[in-house]
Amino acid sequence: METRATDEQIRAVCERIASRSLQTHVVRGSLRTAIAVTGNSGAIDIGSLESMPGVLECTAVSKPYKLAGRDAHPESTVIHISTPLGVAAVGGRSVAMIAGPCAIESREQAFTIAECVKAAGARLFRGGAYKPRTSPYSFQGLGEPGLKILREVREQFGLGIVTEAVDQESLDLVEVVADVIQIGARSMQNFSLLKRAGRARKPILLKRGMSATLDEFLMAAEYIMAEGNDAVILCERGVRTFNDHTRNTLDLSAIPAIHRRSHLPIIVDPSHGTGQRRNVLPLARAAVAAGADGLLVEVHHAPEAALSDGRQAILPAEFAQLMAEGREIAAVIGNTLS
Amino acid sequence: METRATDEQIRAVCERIASRSLQTHVVRGSLRTAIAVTGNSGAIDIGSLESMPGVLECTAVSKPYKLAGRDAHPESTVIHISTPLGVAAVGGRSVAMIAGPCAIESREQAFTIAECVKAAGARLFRGGAYKPRTSPYSFQGLGEPGLKILREVREQFGLGIVTEAVDQESLDLVEVVADVIQIGARSMQNFSLLKRAGRARKPILLKRGMSATLDEFLMAAEYIMAEGNDAVILCERGVRTFNDHTRNTLDLSAIPAIHRRSHLPIIVDPSHGTGQRRNVLPLARAAVAAGADGLLVEVHHAPEAALSDGRQAILPAEFAQLMAEGREIAAVIGNTLS
Amino acid sequence: METRATDEQIRAVCERIASRSLQTHVVRGSLRTAIAVTGNSGAIDIGSLESMPGVLECTAVSKPYKLAGRDAHPESTVIHISTPLGVAAVGGRSVAMIAGPCAIESREQAFTIAECVKAAGARLFRGGAYKPRTSPYSFQGLGEPGLKILREVREQFGLGIVTEAVDQESLDLVEVVADVIQIGARSMQNFSLLKRAGRARKPILLKRGMSATLDEFLMAAEYIMAEGNDAVILCERGVRTFNDHTRNTLDLSAIPAIHRRSHLPIIVDPSHGTGQRRNVLPLARAAVAAGADGLLVEVHHAPEAALSDGRQAILPAEFAQLMAEGREIAAVIGNTLS
Amino acid sequence: METRATDEQIRAVCERIASRSLQTHVVRGSLRTAIAVTGNSGAIDIGSLESMPGVLECTAVSKPYKLAGRDAHPESTVIHISTPLGVAAVGGRSVAMIAGPCAIESREQAFTIAECVKAAGARLFRGGAYKPRTSPYSFQGLGEPGLKILREVREQFGLGIVTEAVDQESLDLVEVVADVIQIGARSMQNFSLLKRAGRARKPILLKRGMSATLDEFLMAAEYIMAEGNDAVILCERGVRTFNDHTRNTLDLSAIPAIHRRSHLPIIVDPSHGTGQRRNVLPLARAAVAAGADGLLVEVHHAPEAALSDGRQAILPAEFAQLMAEGREIAAVIGNTLS
Repeated sequence: METRATDEQIRAVCERIASRSLQTHVVRGSLRTAIAVTGNSGAIDIGSLESMPGVLECTAVSKPYKLAGRDAHPESTVIHISTPLGVAAVGGRSVAMIAGPCAIESREQAFTIAECVKAAGARLFRGGAYKPRTSPYSFQGLGEPGLKILREVREQFGLGIVTEAVDQESLDLVEVVADVIQIGARSMQNFSLLKRAGRARKPILLKRGMSATLDEFLMAAEYIMAEGNDAVILCERGVRTFNDHTRNTLDLSAIPAIHRRSHLPIIVDPSHGTGQRRNVLPLARAAVAAGADGLLVEVHHAPEAALSDGRQAILPAEFAQLMAEGREIAAVIGNTLS
Repeated sequence: METRATDEQIRAVCERIASRSLQTHVVRGSLRTAIAVTGNSGAIDIGSLESMPGVLECTAVSKPYKLAGRDAHPESTVIHISTPLGVAAVGGRSVAMIAGPCAIESREQAFTIAECVKAAGARLFRGGAYKPRTSPYSFQGLGEPGLKILREVREQFGLGIVTEAVDQESLDLVEVVADVIQIGARSMQNFSLLKRAGRARKPILLKRGMSATLDEFLMAAEYIMAEGNDAVILCERGVRTFNDHTRNTLDLSAIPAIHRRSHLPIIVDPSHGTGQRRNVLPLARAAVAAGADGLLVEVHHAPEAALSDGRQAILPAEFAQLMAEGREIAAVIGNTLS
Repeated sequence: METRATDEQIRAVCERIASRSLQTHVVRGSLRTAIAVTGNSGAIDIGSLESMPGVLECTAVSKPYKLAGRDAHPESTVIHISTPLGVAAVGGRSVAMIAGPCAIESREQAFTIAECVKAAGARLFRGGAYKPRTSPYSFQGLGEPGLKILREVREQFGLGIVTEAVDQESLDLVEVVADVIQIGARSMQNFSLLKRAGRARKPILLKRGMSATLDEFLMAAEYIMAEGNDAVILCERGVRTFNDHTRNTLDLSAIPAIHRRSHLPIIVDPSHGTGQRRNVLPLARAAVAAGADGLLVEVHHAPEAALSDGRQAILPAEFAQLMAEGREIAAVIGNTLS
Repeated sequence: METRATDEQIRAVCERIASRSLQTHVVRGSLRTAIAVTGNSGAIDIGSLESMPGVLECTAVSKPYKLAGRDAHPESTVIHISTPLGVAAVGGRSVAMIAGPCAIESREQAFTIAECVKAAGARLFRGGAYKPRTSPYSFQGLGEPGLKILREVREQFGLGIVTEAVDQESLDLVEVVADVIQIGARSMQNFSLLKRAGRARKPILLKRGMSATLDEFLMAAEYIMAEGNDAVILCERGVRTFNDHTRNTLDLSAIPAIHRRSHLPIIVDPSHGTGQRRNVLPLARAAVAAGADGLLVEVHHAPEAALSDGRQAILPAEFAQLMAEGREIAAVIGNTLS
């Protein structure tokens, strides 16, 4: 309450809180009086309290996510992804490598890269058939023919498929082909899409929005989980800051911070997180060292000819090097990368 | 090019550019060589060039928006909104006031507020039937019954209706009732929704995303316009920064900056832009003084009982004061507020 | 406290708080226990508490500024600046216009601009003799000869002088000549300089740091006031964000937010705040409309020949227009600009 | 130039550029004309050009740092720090560990921590005698008695000393005792202090400002180097963003980005970079994996009793673990940590 709040104002606030069947605890300091609220199961709309006379500020102490939070679910969740060659684990002590091109451009392109990805020892293949692009004039992905190519990659190489859905329509199609459905950063608060993902029967890879706090990120996961889908893999992919030396600022502190708040696994996308090939390996290694549960990396055999994001794709040889270095670094902290 | 780029590398870059039917202009400095590119109609995917050997950096000089940009359309666009009592203009020298509650909560609430809004002299009523909320456990709007109330407000008070669509399904319903369809900040890069809005036959009020640059904002407008809908009203509503004294940081420099880049009108939402009732009037006046083409303001007769965002709604008396002050300030720079 | 904090951990925290002669109030919720602390006069170093076992988070409720805060000093402070032609007021209902070039370049330049500034009706002249520049190779100001020119401007035109000190040495010299000593944004947390400014016998114009929160800003004012100088004028000049369309993002919400927290006047610098001449007038008008206690504006008669920051200086005719528009807008909210 | 720039305007710009003895290259595109400028040795003040009629935008292509940049100094610089027990190297393939308390609190505290630091195998001890604090009421460091304790630590344990100077006066004293003089984040653009540091005969550890771009960071190093001191160690310590889960956002992409732009070594401070003990080890490991040339870590044997920043200090056992893990991770990329 404000310094000059009257007893009547304090009483009025307490009454309003009590009218919602919550408990109040009045704490009188030398200058101010505080009112603690307990008994709530979930978030309170503090706005309506904050606009009452005499109220200075309302501060939420409890976190509003019940399903995604670690409070009610202390042990870490391990997501098991079915691939033709067995189950790949994300979380716990398993660090999963997911690699492939930004966009599926052709059968030949996808197969060439899938071969490199598999040869280097990874078990999950990424590649977009539906691409959210800033400009309506940019390549928007192959769509269904792209999904068909992904299905062939899955059969031919035995790799699990991770690919993005951008709306309800594409999610219906992606759900059939993919082993993991990706929800992109720009869709993190597309709540209709999150609810639909919550009704899908495949794990969801949810990317952090460009300027999402961790609370907002976990609330987006909560939207999915509240619909019944518990298999959510979180993905840090860089946030927007004043920095101009990278496309986004990769926030690796999100790894321990998410691990503390949530039982869900958190992986890192150093490709979008930096936007520059030269920075991908250093930041990918850093993510593993910080305890990430996986990496999502763009690989292209001819990045200068890529139809999207060529500047951030690493070459097959660099990817093989990353697998080797990542394995060693993971081992230092007791994790296993594959 | 890098300082140590070889002639061969320079030649290779020029050849790749030429292979896309673009012109190259080699500029040799004392330390570096630059290659200027011309002849493009629209953006070039600079990523593929940036990953070529010897290339230091690629910089886009031309802006990628053709329809939203002022270059090909020098005169300012005025959007005409049909209301039961005639046409309301946004843009040019007309500053439009759009006011109402965050969410439609009941027929009584909507009517009470609509009466205040009309009495103060505004002609456009805002109110959400579909609310994108950070938490799945928060009030998500009344949905279709909310739209029905808005239709009654329109008939009863003669106010034009501005209301939000959150997905394709809600847009289908909103399009029937609304005079202006709002696309929220979280949907600014929901490209499927933008394309659908581009096929709607009503003006679109497009809010700036929480961390969108002006180029991204105008590219989102371009998505709508590329589908055939030229009636786009842009709306600055605050961006996310390190500031912790307001919910968002209202970026009023976006007003002159948008006016310079684009012919579209730009209005300001000081309610979301600050998140606090006490700041709404000062910032609303400031927006008008900076040349905004309109205001989108939350008004509530009983904000402490509001189901959402009560902390940022102003009271009817404050709204009447804002109308009066806004008119005077608009007049100082030759604009007319109504 | 954490959900799983033991009674013993709670007791240990209470004991440590009590050992500092503070009161504890234990608030038990259904899931967590909170401990409220009262009796402190000033900030507590919460870090040492936060590292105790079982502690989840410490949140400061009271603000740490005693002298700058409005709590203990409810009425707004008006700063009176002595000029050869009488006293100029900043704060209360007086909006002070401070104008002049970024840097003093020559006697002729300073006199030409001072004449325009005076003719337009302003009473305070700004101009730097010491310039903090990002590059060691840029023009760093004329130094003492610049101060001599400022003294002549004061005598010749009767304008009060506002000029910057960058270190203790320059402050010694500036203090003799200036009517207001400016501390720049980069020096906002140069605590040695702040303490020296607190011992000066002239009012201080303190600019907000590029990424300072309002609490940090007011704590910097507190440093000055704690040394005995109560005459502090705060100045918002834009903060650093992801925005790339202006040099900084002018945060006009700081005006009502500072007015709420502090009794000190807050003025606005739209020149540094936007970095572009085209945006200065719109944002300057906006600042007045939002209730600013003054403006600090760069004016140059030949900006394309300026030795620093020419891109953001307005022309004399634009300045005269700003004075006229500013007066009218100030009047709308009951203020007087001069 | 703007789309509608006239030939006369283009000519005027070229003439002004030529009047500074620079070369112009006019590049005519289908819509716009660009003017490339060469022949400059150092930055041009583009502001004065940008305010000429017809000019749309000026973009700097060359980097303004000559001494700090890698262009003129391709091989990486290794800084050699003299300690009583020999030379410690920072840079090249040597990763230097610098550890100790935030502030020197007493002889006993310093000795206890120095013993742990040495036992774990580090050779450089950090500890502040002069502390820049946000509040004038916080502990400001022991001052000269603190320096005396540091001198004893040096003699007793043979550790090299890294300690901060906050103004010219303290730098005079620090220079005598320290093996490395630290310039803090808040002083990164205290240009008087940088110039003084440039005249010191000890290596400088320069911390990145809270919202400094890498160009500004390297220009600050340039200030030091321009005065004759080439031994500058850069330090990333987190930048200010919208993130609220850590005190600052540690920007590990600065490591490869600095290595690309500059020959100077770059180390990382994960203690200030995260502000929370729990995040220090993960981020410290990450920094080593990303190729950092060193770590600056806060260690305290009794952090809950620390006079400043206790919440971010790690315990001696954690430090020993970090030394072990750091060594292994450094080895993966061919570096040696000590």
